[in-house]
Amino acid sequence: MTASIPSAILLLSCPDRQGIVAALSAFLFAHHGNILSFDQYVDHDEGIFFARIEWALDGFDIPLPDFPSAFTPLAMEYQIQYTFHDTLRRPRIAILVSRQAHCLYDILSRTESGEWPCEPVLVLSNHEDLRPLAERHNLPFHCIPVTAATRDQQEPLQIKLLQEAGIDLVILARYMQILSPAFIRAFPMRIINIHHSFLPAFAGARPYQAAHDRGVKIIGATAHYATENLDEGPIIEQDVVRVSHRGTVADWTRLGADLEKIVLARAVRHHLLHHILVHGRRTIIFGN
Amino acid sequence: MTASIPSAILLLSCPDRQGIVAALSAFLFAHHGNILSFDQYVDHDEGIFFARIEWALDGFDIPLPDFPSAFTPLAMEYQIQYTFHDTLRRPRIAILVSRQAHCLYDILSRTESGEWPCEPVLVLSNHEDLRPLAERHNLPFHCIPVTAATRDQQEPLQIKLLQEAGIDLVILARYMQILSPAFIRAFPMRIINIHHSFLPAFAGARPYQAAHDRGVKIIGATAHYATENLDEGPIIEQDVVRVSHRGTVADWTRLGADLEKIVLARAVRHHLLHHILVHGRRTIIFGN
Amino acid sequence: MTASIPSAILLLSCPDRQGIVAALSAFLFAHHGNILSFDQYVDHDEGIFFARIEWALDGFDIPLPDFPSAFTPLAMEYQIQYTFHDTLRRPRIAILVSRQAHCLYDILSRTESGEWPCEPVLVLSNHEDLRPLAERHNLPFHCIPVTAATRDQQEPLQIKLLQEAGIDLVILARYMQILSPAFIRAFPMRIINIHHSFLPAFAGARPYQAAHDRGVKIIGATAHYATENLDEGPIIEQDVVRVSHRGTVADWTRLGADLEKIVLARAVRHHLLHHILVHGRRTIIFGN
Amino acid sequence: MTASIPSAILLLSCPDRQGIVAALSAFLFAHHGNILSFDQYVDHDEGIFFARIEWALDGFDIPLPDFPSAFTPLAMEYQIQYTFHDTLRRPRIAILVSRQAHCLYDILSRTESGEWPCEPVLVLSNHEDLRPLAERHNLPFHCIPVTAATRDQQEPLQIKLLQEAGIDLVILARYMQILSPAFIRAFPMRIINIHHSFLPAFAGARPYQAAHDRGVKIIGATAHYATENLDEGPIIEQDVVRVSHRGTVADWTRLGADLEKIVLARAVRHHLLHHILVHGRRTIIFGN
Repeated sequence: MTASIPSAILLLSCPDRQGIVAALSAFLFAHHGNILSFDQYVDHDEGIFFARIEWALDGFDIPLPDFPSAFTPLAMEYQIQYTFHDTLRRPRIAILVSRQAHCLYDILSRTESGEWPCEPVLVLSNHEDLRPLAERHNLPFHCIPVTAATRDQQEPLQIKLLQEAGIDLVILARYMQILSPAFIRAFPMRIINIHHSFLPAFAGARPYQAAHDRGVKIIGATAHYATENLDEGPIIEQDVVRVSHRGTVADWTRLGADLEKIVLARAVRHHLLHHILVHGRRTIIFGN
Repeated sequence: MTASIPSAILLLSCPDRQGIVAALSAFLFAHHGNILSFDQYVDHDEGIFFARIEWALDGFDIPLPDFPSAFTPLAMEYQIQYTFHDTLRRPRIAILVSRQAHCLYDILSRTESGEWPCEPVLVLSNHEDLRPLAERHNLPFHCIPVTAATRDQQEPLQIKLLQEAGIDLVILARYMQILSPAFIRAFPMRIINIHHSFLPAFAGARPYQAAHDRGVKIIGATAHYATENLDEGPIIEQDVVRVSHRGTVADWTRLGADLEKIVLARAVRHHLLHHILVHGRRTIIFGN
Repeated sequence: MTASIPSAILLLSCPDRQGIVAALSAFLFAHHGNILSFDQYVDHDEGIFFARIEWALDGFDIPLPDFPSAFTPLAMEYQIQYTFHDTLRRPRIAILVSRQAHCLYDILSRTESGEWPCEPVLVLSNHEDLRPLAERHNLPFHCIPVTAATRDQQEPLQIKLLQEAGIDLVILARYMQILSPAFIRAFPMRIINIHHSFLPAFAGARPYQAAHDRGVKIIGATAHYATENLDEGPIIEQDVVRVSHRGTVADWTRLGADLEKIVLARAVRHHLLHHILVHGRRTIIFGN
Repeated sequence: MTASIPSAILLLSCPDRQGIVAALSAFLFAHHGNILSFDQYVDHDEGIFFARIEWALDGFDIPLPDFPSAFTPLAMEYQIQYTFHDTLRRPRIAILVSRQAHCLYDILSRTESGEWPCEPVLVLSNHEDLRPLAERHNLPFHCIPVTAATRDQQEPLQIKLLQEAGIDLVILARYMQILSPAFIRAFPMRIINIHHSFLPAFAGARPYQAAHDRGVKIIGATAHYATENLDEGPIIEQDVVRVSHRGTVADWTRLGADLEKIVLARAVRHHLLHHILVHGRRTIIFGN
C-alpha cells in the first residue's frame, strides 16, 4: 500500500496505439511525477489499452485542480477516457443491511481498525435489528422500512439520504431488497453487492438451498457492482469453499457466510484503492 | 487404499431406523467379516440412512455368490437397497473421445501405471485423430463417425460395441457429441462426463468463452454422471482455478484443461473404488 | 448441526478388533439411543479404531450421570478410552489477546450471534488496548501485564483466574506471549492457538516477514492445540491464500489476518462440537 | 499468448529512478516497436525497478543481432541489467527422471500437443525404467546410472551430454539424485526442480511421510530453480490440496503426484515464455 504518501491515481482506457506508453510516461516525467506503479493491459481482441498509473505528488508541478486541463491535450490526441483520484481524499461510504449481521460486523471491524482508506458515514436498513450494532460503533443508523410493495415510495427517501450525506460508495452488505433502476443510476458503478453464490450459478433468491438441491461440491460468493439487471453486474471478486454431502443447507449457509464477508471486503478494498476499471461486463483489476 | 487385500463392499440406503447400525454390524460379525471401514450418513431431512461398508474376505464365511440370499432377510426387514462389490473384480472401462487429447493422455498414464483398479478395454471416437495415442498404449481404437445428423444410425453401433465388450464404465473424456436417452439408459449411472465449467454455470457449448464474456474471476470443471438431461446429472467432483482479466479465452481454456483432467480422474477413481451412492441429483461420496 | 436436540456424544479409541462396531451399536440400541451419527476410522498401520457417536437422549434409558458406570464393562472388554459429552452443557471459553484485534472482533461477532454452542466468560490480555472492544460486548476484560521477564510471577495469576472462572477452552487469539509448560498442563488439549503461518513452515516469530524473504507463492494460517513445544501441537485446521511478488510484508500480513480469523473460528467450532480426537501429533476430526 | 507473432522480450531490472518508464517506452517507440505488453513492478523497500516488455517485431527497425549495441547507451545510463529473448527461438529442453513416471507422462503430453514453445531434446535418467515411455515419444533416452557414491564420476558425463545437446532448460521431473554445485553452476537458473512438499516445510527426503507424521491438513508441491542449497532455490510456483486424517501416506502421495505434475508444468511454462526475473531468493513473475 502506497496510500500513506500523497499520490494521485489515473485509471484510463483508450484505443491501443503505438506510443501510448511513451506519451503517458513522458507527460508525467515532464511534470516531475515520480511513478509509483504503472500497470497496463492491452485487450488485443478489442484493441483497447487500459492502465492504472499512480505517482507521488511530492515534486509534481501540476496542482491537482489543474490536472484535467493540463491532461486534456494528451487525452484528446489518444482518445483517452479516464478518472483521476487524489489518494488523500477518503471516499465516504454507506452500508445497507437487512437482518443478517455477519457482513456488517466484518465491515465495522475493518473501518474501526483503520484498515481501509475511507470515511464510514451511515448504516441504512429496512429493519431495526442491527441498530445496536451500528450505534455501538458510533455510526448513525437509519431505518427506512422497505418491502417490495412500498419500494416506490421509500426509495426516493433512501436516495436523498445518501446523496445529502455525500456518499461515494454504497455497500450492500446482505441487503435483501432489490434496488430500482433509478437507485442504480444515482450511483453508477458505486454500489457493491455481495451475492451468496458463485455467479452466474444460482442467481436470485435462496442460492444455498438451490446449490444443495443441485448437489454441487463447491459453493461460492460473488461481489459485483450492482446494475439494473439483478446479479448481472460486473464481477469484482469471487471465492469458493468445498462442501460435502454431509452438510445441510444450514451448514452451507454458515460456511458461505464466512466467504461472503471476506469476498465483500476484498472487493470494497479494490474499489477504495482505485484498482478497478469496468469494461462492459468485465472488471480489470490492477493491484493486489 | 485397502483394495490390495480381498474385500467386499456394500453400498446401501434405507429408511433411517433405530438399530440399523447394530443390525448391519451384527450380521457381519456373525459371519466373521472383519470391517475395514464403515462410513455412514443420515439425511435427517429425508430420514434416509446411507452407508458404505468394506470388510475383509479372509475368514468371511459366506461365499460371495451366496451373499445376496444370505443378506435378503436383513435387507427386507430394513427395506435396504444395495449394491454389492467384489474388489477383486476389476471394472472394464471404455474411453470416448473426440479430438482433444489432454484427458485421454491423463487417463492412459494412470491405467498404464496401475493407479486404478480397472481394465481399460477400448477407446471409441467419432474422429481418427487420437488413434495413434490409443494404439501406442495397445488399446483398440474404434472410430465411428457421429455427427448430430447421423447420431440415430450410429449410436446403436456404439452401444453394441460397448455392450459386447462387457464395459462397466464409460468415460466421456471430452467427447463432444450429445448422447441420446437410449445410450444413457444402456449404462445408467455408469457414464461419467467431464464438463468444462463449474456447473450449473455455463452448461452447454463453449463454456470458456461464456465465462470470459461474463467476466468471472474463477473457472471450474465438473465431473458428473450423464443423464438424459444434458449437464444436469449428479455431480461427482468439481474444482476451480483463479483467473484474471489478463487471460484470453485461450489462456482460460489451457488452465481449464489441467483442471478437467484432474477432476475427471478423481471422479473415475471414486467410481472404481465404489465410493459413490447416488440419491436423486446428489452424490454421497464415502472415502477420500 | 444436531446441537438443537438433546444428545450425547462419545469420542473413543481402542485397539481395532472384530466386532467393535457391533458391540457399540448393540449397546446403544439396547438402551434405546437413536444414533444421529456414527463416524469411525481405523488406522490400519497402528491398528487403532477411532469413533465419534452421537445419539438422541430422547428415549435413552441411561441417566447421563450413570453413563460411565453403565459403559464400563464394554469399555473394559475392548480397552476403550473415551470422553463423553452432553451437548446441552455449553463449554465456557476465555479469549486471550494482546494488541491485535482482528481475531477478537471475529470471535465476538460469532459468540454474540449465537453461532457457537458456548458461554464466553472473559477476555484476558497483557495489554489494555482491547478493553473497550471486550467491554462493548459486556465481557469482563482482565489485564495482567506479562512480559518474557515477568511471566513466572504473572502466570499463576492467569491460571488461577481461568480456573476460578471454570474455563473449559482457552482461545489464544493472537496472544503474543509464550505459555509456560505449567500453563499448558493446566489445560491439556484445551488451549487452541492460531499461528500466522502454514506450519511447520515459519514457526516462531515474524512468519510473514520470513515467508516474504523466502519468496513463497502461498501463505497460510494454522490453528492447533498448544503443547509444551511451541508451534508443534496437534494441528486442527489450516488454510492458505495465494500471494505474489507485488505484495509487501504489510500486504501479506493483511491477507493473512483474514485467514487467521477464519481458520481459528473453524478450529474452535470443531472443538466446541466435540469433533476432535487427538492421537499423538495428529487430530482426527469427525464432522464438517 | 502472443507467442504466435514474431516478438521480442526484454526482462530487466535497474535502480528505480524517475523517468525510467518514459525512457524505455520512448526508445521502443523511436524504433517502431509496437508494445504488446509492458509489465513493471517497483520494489520500494529496495528501490529496484523490474520490467518485462514484449513488442512486435513487425516494423521494428533494429535487427535483433544489433539490439544489444543499440540498447547499450540506455542500459548504461540507467544501470539496467537485462536479458533479451527472441520468441521465435524455441528453448531446447532436457528432462531428468528416475523411476517415477507421472511428471514425465505429463510433460510429454504437453510437448507432443505443442502446448509449449520449446524443443524437447532428450530424457536422461539414472534408471532404465522409463526408457519405453521416452522412446514411444521418439525422444532419445540416455541412462547414466548415478548413485550417491558414483555421482562424482558420472556427473561430468551428464553435464557433457547436456551441453553438447545445446540444452537451454533442464527439468528435474522427480529426479531423485542431488546435483553437485558444479552441475548447478553449468546451468544457472536454468534447472527447474519439483519438490513434493510445500517448501520450506518438509524439505529433504520423504516429505509425504513427514507431513503425515506431523498431521498437517494441507499438502503441497513446489517448483523452484535448483541452486547449490538443496530445496532452497527461488520458488516459481506452489499449489496445495486439502488432506484428512483418513488418508494414508500412500493416499497423500497419490494426491500429491497430481499436484506435482501441474505445478511443475506451470513453472516450466513461465520459464519458456520468459515470464520470470530472479531477485535473490524471490522470483518476480510477469504474465499469467
